[in-house]
Amino acid sequence: MPRSAETASFKFNHTMLRVKDPKVSLDFYTRIIGMNLLTEKKFSDFTLYFLAFDVDNKFDSLNDEEKANEARSREGVLELTHNHGTESDPNFQGYASGNSDPGKGFGHIAIAVDNIQKACARFEQLGVPFKKKLTEGKMKNIAFMLDPDGYWVEVVPSTFGRD
Amino acid sequence: MPRSAETASFKFNHTMLRVKDPKVSLDFYTRIIGMNLLTEKKFSDFTLYFLAFDVDNKFDSLNDEEKANEARSREGVLELTHNHGTESDPNFQGYASGNSDPGKGFGHIAIAVDNIQKACARFEQLGVPFKKKLTEGKMKNIAFMLDPDGYWVEVVPSTFGRD
Repeated sequence: MPRSAETASFKFNHTMLRVKDPKVSLDFYTRIIGMNLLTEKKFSDFTLYFLAFDVDNKFDSLNDEEKANEARSREGVLELTHNHGTESDPNFQGYASGNSDPGKGFGHIAIAVDNIQKACARFEQLGVPFKKKLTEGKMKNIAFMLDPDGYWVEVVPSTFGRD
Repeated sequence: MPRSAETASFKFNHTMLRVKDPKVSLDFYTRIIGMNLLTEKKFSDFTLYFLAFDVDNKFDSLNDEEKANEARSREGVLELTHNHGTESDPNFQGYASGNSDPGKGFGHIAIAVDNIQKACARFEQLGVPFKKKLTEGKMKNIAFMLDPDGYWVEVVPSTFGRD
């Protein structure tokens, strides 16, 4: 089905998750997962962080304005929302992962990698907790990790012949 | 920060949401939102549907195997999970949107469009319910729609100078 003219410009720009502590989450999504922080927008009560993988190896050549524009116009952007104060509030209950009641609905985000054995071995070495390791369960070709808030991060092979 | 060799192949492949009725959700995400169904995988208890925008106008030239591969390897894929039976179960409570307690955590997915006035006028004409219309609230440059399960779908302008 060809795209209609009315939706021809549309892109799946981003997915938004709330996070308790941006320092912890930004470390996870940049150092461990490999995304880059493109831009952040601070408001009085909350701050938004926009991250993406540098799939075209071009982020280094962009200035701040161009990076902010990239965050708005491309696909595959992750928006993390930090409501100020949650990181140091002893009464903060944490966010629901979306995978159990009540709150079930959202499932996960997924990262495609070229060598899933190598990628998962590295994640394990870096101490990332797993919901399901590659070797566990029925499906030996995918893994589920937990991000710092407990959201599920699936790891899938991007090469053909996954299953 | 350049990408490390260890994460150089990584992409933000997909976001998964559970849906009550795939007929209703597929109609929403294809006819109204403009995505294409790339592939589906049926299991005994559930079916997975993988959708994406045909941003490179190439889906028509792909066979089923190539479309399935595309769903695994590109960014911007939406995975809808249908647990068989929810669509006709009078006791099914529905899924949490992630935007109120309990279950708060997941926020929304966002569609970037080139002409947000025109896009939102069309969505309104098609009867899509809005959480926040373009003209409502403080931020006049974004809108929030509700998908058939009540998940928030943000509409954002992809052109520079959004705010």
